Amino acid sequence: MAQQDVQNGESEKVASAVEIKAVLTQLVVPKADDAVKFYKAAFGAVELERSTHPKRKAEQERPLILSAQLKLGSSTFLVSDNTEDSGEPVNVVGSGAIALWLETPDIGAAVAKAVLAGAVSEGEITTGVFSDPEQPVGKVRDPFGFLWFFTSPVAKKAAAESEAPVTV
Amino acid sequence: MAQQDVQNGESEKVASAVEIKAVLTQLVVPKADDAVKFYKAAFGAVELERSTHPKRKAEQERPLILSAQLKLGSSTFLVSDNTEDSGEPVNVVGSGAIALWLETPDIGAAVAKAVLAGAVSEGEITTGVFSDPEQPVGKVRDPFGFLWFFTSPVAKKAAAESEAPVTV
Repeated sequence: MAQQDVQNGESEKVASAVEIKAVLTQLVVPKADDAVKFYKAAFGAVELERSTHPKRKAEQERPLILSAQLKLGSSTFLVSDNTEDSGEPVNVVGSGAIALWLETPDIGAAVAKAVLAGAVSEGEITTGVFSDPEQPVGKVRDPFGFLWFFTSPVAKKAAAESEAPVTV
Repeated sequence: MAQQDVQNGESEKVASAVEIKAVLTQLVVPKADDAVKFYKAAFGAVELERSTHPKRKAEQERPLILSAQLKLGSSTFLVSDNTEDSGEPVNVVGSGAIALWLETPDIGAAVAKAVLAGAVSEGEITTGVFSDPEQPVGKVRDPFGFLWFFTSPVAKKAAAESEAPVTV
């Protein structure tokens, strides 16, 4: 049995170690501040936290919203501005786009497990895609065309706490 | 104060009464059974329940999946077959589509509140859009192009319980 474990090799060890903490749906729109106001008025959403692009504060009237976390009943979802530097649009819908985020402590292992199951890795683990510029992000495309981003909840929380509160 | 309440009229009473229980993201794909298997293998998703189209069981090799509910960490999401009778595709992504569902006890009030806030109602409250054919569904399009479906968690649970367990 111990011998069998060794023969199974690195890939199975990686796969069994992966833990997904949560799925988050992110709506990416041209004017996230307007969208947050709308979801509050239309659905009664409550804004839990907001992280903004640090470089944009001095340059623009409204800070660029990297991620506003909205609570709706027992669920949360994210609303973000579509950034110029976010690369090609993903999961485009109308004027916006939808991104699917998976929170996991080990991004590399999660990407490896998904690829073993048939997903296609989209580049190296990188930073700054619809998110905090400092936050590491892994990306895979599943066999059905959806793009999934992997991120670490710990890194995300630390990044959010380093932001000063935003008054709108 | 009581007089003021009366003057505010029906619309405010409707808006304040709306309660959204949860947001659910639904991935609509050509082969939902394959997708469920993939999300189990790739992300470690656990299937909580599955409702199938009653009419399709006898006609086809695989029952048409109206909705498979997958748990991933603290979150759930839905995977569904793209049905011929589901009308125009919504929020199309690659070969699939993403639908956003809001669970609320009062669909009519929730649609009315969203419309007051600037959403556009997409037809009457109807049934059978990417869902149980008997389940009432309201639909609005928000100012950013996303379609949102309102459904009642009670009706959904009752519908799921009326289905026999599916063995795959």
